Amino acid sequence: MQFQTTHTLAELAAYLQGTCLSGAQMVIQGVNTLKEASSTDITFLAQPQYVPLLAETHAAAVVVGANHADKCNQPIIIVPDPYIAFGQLMRLCAPDEPVLAGIHPSAVVAKTAVIAKTATIEAQAFIGEHVQIGEGVHIGPQVSIGAHSTIGAQTKLFAQVGIYHQVHIGERCIIHSGAVIGADGFGFANHKGNWIKIPQLAGVEIADDVEIGANTAIDRGVLTPTRIGRGVKIDNLVQIGHNVQVGDHTIITGCVAIAGSTTIGKHCAIGGGSCINGHIQITDGVQITAMSGVLASIDKPGVYSSGSPAIENAKWRKLMASYFRLPDILKRLRALEQDK
Amino acid sequence: MQFQTTHTLAELAAYLQGTCLSGAQMVIQGVNTLKEASSTDITFLAQPQYVPLLAETHAAAVVVGANHADKCNQPIIIVPDPYIAFGQLMRLCAPDEPVLAGIHPSAVVAKTAVIAKTATIEAQAFIGEHVQIGEGVHIGPQVSIGAHSTIGAQTKLFAQVGIYHQVHIGERCIIHSGAVIGADGFGFANHKGNWIKIPQLAGVEIADDVEIGANTAIDRGVLTPTRIGRGVKIDNLVQIGHNVQVGDHTIITGCVAIAGSTTIGKHCAIGGGSCINGHIQITDGVQITAMSGVLASIDKPGVYSSGSPAIENAKWRKLMASYFRLPDILKRLRALEQDK
Amino acid sequence: MQFQTTHTLAELAAYLQGTCLSGAQMVIQGVNTLKEASSTDITFLAQPQYVPLLAETHAAAVVVGANHADKCNQPIIIVPDPYIAFGQLMRLCAPDEPVLAGIHPSAVVAKTAVIAKTATIEAQAFIGEHVQIGEGVHIGPQVSIGAHSTIGAQTKLFAQVGIYHQVHIGERCIIHSGAVIGADGFGFANHKGNWIKIPQLAGVEIADDVEIGANTAIDRGVLTPTRIGRGVKIDNLVQIGHNVQVGDHTIITGCVAIAGSTTIGKHCAIGGGSCINGHIQITDGVQITAMSGVLASIDKPGVYSSGSPAIENAKWRKLMASYFRLPDILKRLRALEQDK
Repeated sequence: MQFQTTHTLAELAAYLQGTCLSGAQMVIQGVNTLKEASSTDITFLAQPQYVPLLAETHAAAVVVGANHADKCNQPIIIVPDPYIAFGQLMRLCAPDEPVLAGIHPSAVVAKTAVIAKTATIEAQAFIGEHVQIGEGVHIGPQVSIGAHSTIGAQTKLFAQVGIYHQVHIGERCIIHSGAVIGADGFGFANHKGNWIKIPQLAGVEIADDVEIGANTAIDRGVLTPTRIGRGVKIDNLVQIGHNVQVGDHTIITGCVAIAGSTTIGKHCAIGGGSCINGHIQITDGVQITAMSGVLASIDKPGVYSSGSPAIENAKWRKLMASYFRLPDILKRLRALEQDK
Repeated sequence: MQFQTTHTLAELAAYLQGTCLSGAQMVIQGVNTLKEASSTDITFLAQPQYVPLLAETHAAAVVVGANHADKCNQPIIIVPDPYIAFGQLMRLCAPDEPVLAGIHPSAVVAKTAVIAKTATIEAQAFIGEHVQIGEGVHIGPQVSIGAHSTIGAQTKLFAQVGIYHQVHIGERCIIHSGAVIGADGFGFANHKGNWIKIPQLAGVEIADDVEIGANTAIDRGVLTPTRIGRGVKIDNLVQIGHNVQVGDHTIITGCVAIAGSTTIGKHCAIGGGSCINGHIQITDGVQITAMSGVLASIDKPGVYSSGSPAIENAKWRKLMASYFRLPDILKRLRALEQDK
Repeated sequence: MQFQTTHTLAELAAYLQGTCLSGAQMVIQGVNTLKEASSTDITFLAQPQYVPLLAETHAAAVVVGANHADKCNQPIIIVPDPYIAFGQLMRLCAPDEPVLAGIHPSAVVAKTAVIAKTATIEAQAFIGEHVQIGEGVHIGPQVSIGAHSTIGAQTKLFAQVGIYHQVHIGERCIIHSGAVIGADGFGFANHKGNWIKIPQLAGVEIADDVEIGANTAIDRGVLTPTRIGRGVKIDNLVQIGHNVQVGDHTIITGCVAIAGSTTIGKHCAIGGGSCINGHIQITDGVQITAMSGVLASIDKPGVYSSGSPAIENAKWRKLMASYFRLPDILKRLRALEQDK
């Protein structure tokens, strides 16, 4: 990936707040992985298993932690966290976003909506009654924002995001296309076999610095808002039920489902495809590995798992046959033990 | 949650068709849970495990079933089903929806479409050729409706719903943002390694009083329509394949996948994250717990489960190690039994 | 399903490049399954388990393979693959799509975009700067296409598809409503508990003849594009992470999640609801059955499975109780063996 302009190694070291021991005047044109870097690129070592690639890389220079500095033959920049440095180098590749500001004539904006002067409303967006849009906000094409919702400063909504009424989104958030925030929670009472809808009247509150992936759905609360904490990152196609509370800086990977009224702590990590039961509490610092089914509350930090990894189908069939005999196996084992 | 206007306890009892024994003139301002109700709220007891909270609640009055009437110190309203009464009380909190009616000038409506006089078509909606929109229908902003589709009276489509051609939706349905009804089913024939598309020509038929969640997808049928029965409730991010038939009053929780040509009976409940195989039949009254994989037909009502709940990762690793040895365990057990 | 016009059996045989032994002048009005065909329909036998239905069908004629020709009492057309022939017959039922061509006045098209003369841009579509739209392309209503993206000839995007910037889509592709192509991959570095975004700067490359289902999300790459090979078919609600490479003619069923930087081979089939770990390699010709969790690379073609099928809840509870005792069972078994 090419930088927008070239930089000397010394300039990059200064930008990364790192230490450059040699090659300060070397001109670097871009950044890439150890494997794919060319002789004009800088690369980085973020994981120990890639140390062997240091000998093979074509890169002109390497960003490393102090612990791996002696393993590089190329000029290096020493930083505390090479992966974070990689992210910073990637920023040098991104073109400046055009400053648009203003409302595209094809957008439909309610008269009672308040749009900050530095906000951008792109083509065919719909902004409902009493909506408030903060400074520097970027509303993409074909976004819909329902009545009485608010969008905090510097937040970006990509094309086709759907925000219902009474949804409050913080500052510097990023919401990707197709995400739906504030649809009715799934609440019904059964009356003689018919399902009667329970009105879902509370909205959604999303704190600052949250990112929400494509086609993710976050339902509105019943009596109190569904809440997503500060710095939370949510991947694509995630389902978050009504009244759920997600603690600050928790990360939720793709295709996770969190049922209604559950509380997730701070600094948790929920692996892809996991399902979390409703009305339970997950404490701070819990990691759930991918495809786990969490049925009960978890009150101790740590790593939790369920499921079973895929194996050859023939072996799996054999395993399943004995799996269904498990209660029988246990019974026969007990009998043998008593016979001794 | 505040009522739109205050009500006396007697008024509420009349509205709920319940019995009020005392405090008839007490003025109630809103409704909330046992835990969060204030001294101007009414609350409700819907589940026996919350009986202890009756002693602690700050609520002015309680809606209860006759079996718990003697456990309340506050004035009560006795009803047959307190949870349904809660839903009714929530309706008193919801503002009346503004009566819009009419077609927003930014909507694009085909000349051959027939729109009832009391229907509302919001901004930037697209209505295709020969579409019929019933009385009191509410089409949200940026909704798209394909040719020859029909929307029954009083149905509401939230912003950005996508309806393909030849989709028929009943009366009083609610469809949430991002739901896609009528996309092509996933049908391909393999010809020497290449996948040849089988045209998907039948539409979708959705009966009355159905609710469909955000970003759910219901595919069109091949030869006969995919059908969703009366009163069915479908949560967010659910996938329903081509030719599927879902019986009346069945409820399908978030992130369920139902493969093509499967029939689900009436009054079933499918737990979140479950996958249901194609070309199978599930009889009436079946409950599937969350994250189950249903491979074969089920012909008896009852509760069905699969999967395994999440546990600490260290324990899970140990469990997996012995799980993979299950066929060996069974073999060794048999050997011991023969040795006796 | 009725044909657009009637055909004689001889005409159908010629169209299917099959052999018709009798009834050449018979007039056929449509096509349907063995079970549902009427006396003016042709039907087909694609799977051996349906042979018994040959005796019961009301169809006027049957499309069969040579191996089942002697089992039919009706006139037949013999073809190499009756299921492919069914697909061809279905094409005779589909109405010709109206040739629209041109740009609807409500569409917003950037001045720098290049739109082929025979392309159709429907109502309220948004076409960004420097986008290129090929000959015969059909862009549905309310589609959004970001800057510098390209759409190959004859490709069809249904209503409300979301294409980000720098996404390249091949020829003859079909993309269904709500699909989002090119959203940011889920890449963050952890800095003292806070998640720092890694810019996702590479786009997505989709080869020719790809079909992508409703509400599916395919993320853009970090340094190199996410790539979907030629002839790949992807169902609804599938999540494909950044940098993923999917080989030619692979088929991915609904609700699959593929984590970032994973490579899937050619001619693979991934069953519905499966999750595939990040940074692994799946070789060519691998089949993953539904709801599998693939944690590690697979380097041999074959069928792979995990999970456990749903059973009655009471049995499942018993099974789970013994399942959690598996390490203990193994230990006790070893003790018994040593005692012998």
